[in-house]
Amino acid sequence: MAALPGQRLCLPAAAVPRCPGSSLSPVRAFPRGCRARGAPAGARVARGGRAVGPGVRRGQASGRALDSLDRGRRGRIKQAGGRLRCSCRGGRGAEPPPGPAEMEHGSRGAAPGGVSVSAVLPAGGSGERLGGATPKQFCAVQGRPLVSYAVRAMERISWISDIIVVVSPENIETMKTIIEKYGHKRVTVVEGGITRHRSIFNGLKVFAENEFSSHLVQKPDVVIIHDAVRPFVEEDIVSKVVMAAKEHGAAGAIRPLVSTVIASAADGCLDHSLERTRYRASEMPQAFLFDIIYGAYQQCTDYDLDYGTECLHLALKYCKTNARLVEGTADLWKVTYKRDLYAAESIIKDNLSQQVCVITNVKETLAQVGFLLPESLKSQIKVEAISISLSKNDSCLQNIISGLCYNFVCVNDERWAIQEAQELVNMLEKSNIPLLHPVVLILVYLDIPENNSFSIGMEGLTMIKKFAREAKKKNILVYGLLIQYKDPLLLQETVNSAAALIMALIKDRNPELIGQLLVA
Amino acid sequence: MAALPGQRLCLPAAAVPRCPGSSLSPVRAFPRGCRARGAPAGARVARGGRAVGPGVRRGQASGRALDSLDRGRRGRIKQAGGRLRCSCRGGRGAEPPPGPAEMEHGSRGAAPGGVSVSAVLPAGGSGERLGGATPKQFCAVQGRPLVSYAVRAMERISWISDIIVVVSPENIETMKTIIEKYGHKRVTVVEGGITRHRSIFNGLKVFAENEFSSHLVQKPDVVIIHDAVRPFVEEDIVSKVVMAAKEHGAAGAIRPLVSTVIASAADGCLDHSLERTRYRASEMPQAFLFDIIYGAYQQCTDYDLDYGTECLHLALKYCKTNARLVEGTADLWKVTYKRDLYAAESIIKDNLSQQVCVITNVKETLAQVGFLLPESLKSQIKVEAISISLSKNDSCLQNIISGLCYNFVCVNDERWAIQEAQELVNMLEKSNIPLLHPVVLILVYLDIPENNSFSIGMEGLTMIKKFAREAKKKNILVYGLLIQYKDPLLLQETVNSAAALIMALIKDRNPELIGQLLVA
Repeated sequence: MAALPGQRLCLPAAAVPRCPGSSLSPVRAFPRGCRARGAPAGARVARGGRAVGPGVRRGQASGRALDSLDRGRRGRIKQAGGRLRCSCRGGRGAEPPPGPAEMEHGSRGAAPGGVSVSAVLPAGGSGERLGGATPKQFCAVQGRPLVSYAVRAMERISWISDIIVVVSPENIETMKTIIEKYGHKRVTVVEGGITRHRSIFNGLKVFAENEFSSHLVQKPDVVIIHDAVRPFVEEDIVSKVVMAAKEHGAAGAIRPLVSTVIASAADGCLDHSLERTRYRASEMPQAFLFDIIYGAYQQCTDYDLDYGTECLHLALKYCKTNARLVEGTADLWKVTYKRDLYAAESIIKDNLSQQVCVITNVKETLAQVGFLLPESLKSQIKVEAISISLSKNDSCLQNIISGLCYNFVCVNDERWAIQEAQELVNMLEKSNIPLLHPVVLILVYLDIPENNSFSIGMEGLTMIKKFAREAKKKNILVYGLLIQYKDPLLLQETVNSAAALIMALIKDRNPELIGQLLVA
Repeated sequence: MAALPGQRLCLPAAAVPRCPGSSLSPVRAFPRGCRARGAPAGARVARGGRAVGPGVRRGQASGRALDSLDRGRRGRIKQAGGRLRCSCRGGRGAEPPPGPAEMEHGSRGAAPGGVSVSAVLPAGGSGERLGGATPKQFCAVQGRPLVSYAVRAMERISWISDIIVVVSPENIETMKTIIEKYGHKRVTVVEGGITRHRSIFNGLKVFAENEFSSHLVQKPDVVIIHDAVRPFVEEDIVSKVVMAAKEHGAAGAIRPLVSTVIASAADGCLDHSLERTRYRASEMPQAFLFDIIYGAYQQCTDYDLDYGTECLHLALKYCKTNARLVEGTADLWKVTYKRDLYAAESIIKDNLSQQVCVITNVKETLAQVGFLLPESLKSQIKVEAISISLSKNDSCLQNIISGLCYNFVCVNDERWAIQEAQELVNMLEKSNIPLLHPVVLILVYLDIPENNSFSIGMEGLTMIKKFAREAKKKNILVYGLLIQYKDPLLLQETVNSAAALIMALIKDRNPELIGQLLVA
């Protein structure tokens, strides 16, 4: 499906014949509030899978299953010549967050080598190794499911046309909700099979079926296969793998082995160790000329589909294509265990803590702190310092927000003034920045005590707390910070202490501590 | 060296012939304040390595090197028949933290299968993959170097006699400081070679040299080899590996492969993929009959020593010993990348957040909160609630501290009372509990406002901050928390909010936020 500038896609339904692994059910997911273009209200859509390989039946529309998928969405979906579309009319998530890495398909870039490219993300795993009830791809990291990070990593690459997310039948609704909530675009949800290979095959069929019938999504020259549990893939490696696939027919990212690999004998003893330097860990993303990987899947045996996991191997075995191996970066690792979730959380927090915008009210009393605080922060974080009144819509601030800044410090001398902070919250909300990641907003109050008796009234605290609770609903984490301006000689020390607290709040992004007033 | 109940060991020096990989220099490290038994003040000790294999020169005492190692420690070391010992006379770290998992060699347990067991920890890596200047084993996790966690994991297993830590020449001083600071026992520091295998070989030589000469450390029946960068090994798996080594001559922990392993051809393309189910990742700990692994190292080539990393392979190649493979747990993973440090930090925080002790002053005004708060916490953490006056030395509290509780909540109704908290800090310091991990202490103040005007004076805040700064020096993180008791109907809600803040403080253990007063 070609990208349409300014368009967003609405939620259709799908036929879900309930034989896992033997049918496919593409579910094009679209954000809430959108409408399928030209669709009569109340239209239902059933899409069956096309028989494409041995043992695969053509899917059939099932009224019952369709009802369960389509519940609450009737009247918003239409079918137009086999395509499902909608035009977007504002609403949350309507404006894509701008910035170089966040360009949307409105300005779709050229794919490497001029080929058309789409992606399949198998997300059907059960997450056994994680040891929890929730499959790992749906575990929350900073409040957002892991799969959303992987989708976003693909979505922000402007030259990827379609993103097929393959999930197990019981998670189709969950996945649709995620796509809606986080405003993901160009995503089609497909029902997976009982194994990873069967799920990937189902994902690929969406393109192949198209080729012969309804053109729901266009068959790409090159298809990327990536995992839903590898949240940190960068455009650079995706581009390299796609280019290599164009040339060699298949390509995959690799990494050095962390541990020596050994073969065990039948008696549970060592048979032999592999020489570490000759082997590599096969990671994701991988990419293939579509016809090669699809051809391989069409030929492969039930044993391959049930017990294999490696696509490169299938391309070699059935299409005699030796994949090009591309050395990847350390961030390609797969979230497998609970410790990987911890690591992902910390890396994301780290990534969000690279830049802070310090906004100082133009008033003169604040000039000194407005100067010292950014200086003190500079040793730890990139600082954008601006001096404005927030009630005036400032283009400089708009640019900083648009540049994906996730941390803001507002310096104020009025005690518990929150009107200006409210302006910032409104701007952030409009920008869509807090949609994908929590934004930290620290309200710094400069307090000059009279006659040396210093106290914090409960009304002030209550006001900050209430404000913070409201902002939290918009994924903005508000904290208060009091700088005591008692002794000018001690001001530098106090400001340094404030900077340390600001860094701690930014790095931790702790939602439980919102609305608290810290004292520097 | 046999364990002597109640004894601790003092710092000797070692000869350090500076040819890496060709000599060894055991440095027995002991905590500060200890004294070599019977040693005349001012005695210096030089210990040379014994030539044990091809290309290995006998080490020679070097006055210069010895001076540099022994700087500042003269007068505390003695040589007694080739053994270095001291009796411990109190001081920081003198009392080992008790508790089932923390038993020290004073009550040395029996090794599995009745064999004598020691351990070698290679810690000479450069940490290139971590991408920092500090080798990963010396990177701080919760303020403490990673290697200290691995040493502790071995040290707490009572039947391991000696722990040999092998570090590169430039890190010997650092390692000695770590051992001293964290009160590690039964540890000998040895200079490593230029590769991992050469370092392990150096570590093993300390036992073999002994056998023929000075008996600094006794040659064990079984030697464990473990990594300095695997902080989470449990006694159970160590025991299994040791038992298997006793029976089979060699044994090692294994884990399922996370990624498919592939062989690459010379042209950078895929040669073949390995079938994942037939292969395993070889992890640590490994264990060997000493004579087998030492024999293997004595026979192995320079190529093996320079390019190999896997001990199981050497035992197979040179001693025809097929190691028994023991399925390990997920926590055996090796800290390799920065993300692994993040994961380690989170796991340690998680482990420290399992239990909290809520201490309520006996006063009647506190009875309701003293009841409600533990109840509210119980859904999230194991709670020990006691009602005592801290000024009285309470055996119940002592037991909780001894049981390795790392989180304390003191409920008080006097505003900013810290005398009682000081008692607790003193008890904790004496217990040695904060030596290895930061302890969280939350001072909860119950505040009943008069005539509805409510304020926090700066004196109170200043007092908590000052107290927290002092406690921080003892690795105790103090936070304040105010519970407003305004409306009895709202008390439950306020207490729930307090419990959420307490959990956030415990889980985060953020040293930057100490001394802050949060308001529930």
